[in-house]
Amino acid sequence: MRRFTSRLLHLFSPNKQLALQLEHILGFRPVHLPYYQLALMHRSKIEELSNNNERLEFLGDAILGSIVAEYLFKKYPLQPEGYLTEIRSRIVRRETLNNVALRMGLNKLVQYNQNDRGLSRSHIFGNALEALIGAVYLDKGFARTRVFILQQVIKPYIDLGHIESTDTNYKNQLLSWAQKAGHTLSFETLNEKTEGSRKIFTVAVVLNGKNLATGNGYNKKEAGQVAAQRALEQLKLP
Amino acid sequence: MRRFTSRLLHLFSPNKQLALQLEHILGFRPVHLPYYQLALMHRSKIEELSNNNERLEFLGDAILGSIVAEYLFKKYPLQPEGYLTEIRSRIVRRETLNNVALRMGLNKLVQYNQNDRGLSRSHIFGNALEALIGAVYLDKGFARTRVFILQQVIKPYIDLGHIESTDTNYKNQLLSWAQKAGHTLSFETLNEKTEGSRKIFTVAVVLNGKNLATGNGYNKKEAGQVAAQRALEQLKLP
Repeated sequence: MRRFTSRLLHLFSPNKQLALQLEHILGFRPVHLPYYQLALMHRSKIEELSNNNERLEFLGDAILGSIVAEYLFKKYPLQPEGYLTEIRSRIVRRETLNNVALRMGLNKLVQYNQNDRGLSRSHIFGNALEALIGAVYLDKGFARTRVFILQQVIKPYIDLGHIESTDTNYKNQLLSWAQKAGHTLSFETLNEKTEGSRKIFTVAVVLNGKNLATGNGYNKKEAGQVAAQRALEQLKLP
Repeated sequence: MRRFTSRLLHLFSPNKQLALQLEHILGFRPVHLPYYQLALMHRSKIEELSNNNERLEFLGDAILGSIVAEYLFKKYPLQPEGYLTEIRSRIVRRETLNNVALRMGLNKLVQYNQNDRGLSRSHIFGNALEALIGAVYLDKGFARTRVFILQQVIKPYIDLGHIESTDTNYKNQLLSWAQKAGHTLSFETLNEKTEGSRKIFTVAVVLNGKNLATGNGYNKKEAGQVAAQRALEQLKLP
């Protein structure tokens, strides 16, 4: 059916084509197409703010946050607020959403400047997914957006069991241990160097004034995670 | 009418009393009262998480964020995403919400331990307002919550002109200057340390790749504000 649809697509006008492609992704037929065209327009293609997706991304991000909040609130009736906050942040973070957007095929629909090499790390497809959520909200209202997010985004692409079980936030684990144990813990950037066109950072975990472990990464967050992971190993935690 | 209502209140059962008081605040009659009773229960009174308002606060915070986002998105059709984000953060920040909650009279309804002196700075009424929004959402759905927030919260208590005109946000001042002047500006967290039970963050203002100023604070936002203020001084801005 999918192949059949894509073969037929060239028979239709560009708008009709887009509507059909969107219907496949959204699970319903879009009504007001300009919202969606805006959602799929990256700033690298059109700088002018009323014609790119950045404002819709702001709206969609907020709507997504509230629908995921309700979903987790109901799914985990016995978990404290801090747990819900953490799981939500893992679901809505840029890396996760970008990955979901790629699997949904949004990269085939987003309009962006393909010659702009700086874009590869900027999560434009995840951002476009948020903008798309904003477009659905404006086009069809909250209830339909909620169904879209639950049925077309969370259900097929978010593996909650996996998200719950992987606590890859070593920094948080370490900080929470230090707080409980009454230790003074800090992360300090020891070094920044440029290798080719990329920067490399070295971050140290400092425990009670002493360097415990260091880590390198392409940004401070990444370097801090590596350092924290090594520190946890050294401390034989958790 | 208000005085008449409050004189009559003692004639009713506690639940009926609460329902009447809530109707006055909400603009509609609550249906499922237990949601609201939960929203008004602070942890200082009941530690157990399924019986205090912290989970509802998580939900209400997200719903409020999305409704304010939509409100600003439509109110400011020509403003960039960064502006909407900033105005929203001023509306939903703890100080603002706590103040609104007090003016709504939520302090008369929230159940909390009045002997706990540490509570004075913890914005329990603003948090209860968020939890109340969560209760309204569960009780009446999104559309009714939206009307409640727009009509009973924003319209009477949020002075947007005032919020827009008071730019105490040094970070924003700095960012908008850098954008106009074509500079590259970023905020980077240099350090996190735990002192006693509190975290202290150090954030740097990085201008065109060089550290310009740093600031400390109990959270990244606060530290960023301090750093931005110092940077503005150094740059002799505005």
